[in-house]
Amino acid sequence: MNRYTYEEITIGQTERFSVTVTQQMQDDFRKITGDLNPLHADAAYAASHGHKGPVVFGMLTLSFLSTLAGMYLPGERSLIHETEGKLRRPVYIGDELTIEGTVSDKSDAVHVITVKYTITNQDGVKVARGQMQIGVEGEGNG
Amino acid sequence: MNRYTYEEITIGQTERFSVTVTQQMQDDFRKITGDLNPLHADAAYAASHGHKGPVVFGMLTLSFLSTLAGMYLPGERSLIHETEGKLRRPVYIGDELTIEGTVSDKSDAVHVITVKYTITNQDGVKVARGQMQIGVEGEGNG
Repeated sequence: MNRYTYEEITIGQTERFSVTVTQQMQDDFRKITGDLNPLHADAAYAASHGHKGPVVFGMLTLSFLSTLAGMYLPGERSLIHETEGKLRRPVYIGDELTIEGTVSDKSDAVHVITVKYTITNQDGVKVARGQMQIGVEGEGNG
Repeated sequence: MNRYTYEEITIGQTERFSVTVTQQMQDDFRKITGDLNPLHADAAYAASHGHKGPVVFGMLTLSFLSTLAGMYLPGERSLIHETEGKLRRPVYIGDELTIEGTVSDKSDAVHVITVKYTITNQDGVKVARGQMQIGVEGEGNG
């Protein structure tokens, strides 16, 4: 886990990690949310809608923004204030996603950073992109 | 599960549901994301940052947008295209959240609805708000 302070973060700083989406993750996310939509569970239903398999929950894909902020950029000293995301392409079970964030702005008065991110699959297709506002503790805190 | 078609959705239409955030949800979300940040796990660490207990992952709170779209508004015939959310107040284990969405716009050319949402805790405090763009199948599909 990174522990960057607000002062240590620089504009242009980039962090990335990869994760393979498993059936277990899909099942656990369904259990948490109670979202029983068949597009995410029923292969035949998904196929009838043009998909090669059940579609990974879009909000599950965006869940890895928690990891991006809380483990990588900035890591421990963080709290997510705002997120936005565009889900561009479907994600399927077994896809390997690379989540990459780059610091695009810093607001010194409130110790908030803006991180622009992309989520890309194993074929190099951008499945999601957007940005987050993340509060970061300074050296004097925490 | 609702099954509203695009044609059936009306501007101003509102759906809501409530859910209590459990320790199991928090643990399952941590397992999915690998976000080991102590703010979400360590009561002493959270207390040292002014919290009455471990803070529920912000992206876990926003996970219920999956439920809002996939089960309620519009339900089965949906796919989330975009989300944005502002996390305004901390959520704690045991909080009962009410997720409420209202249709604010319809784009007939692309069959996309805009849903503005609020997430409110048991004390009536808005912990999050934002909006989503959701694709909805018409009567001729699915």
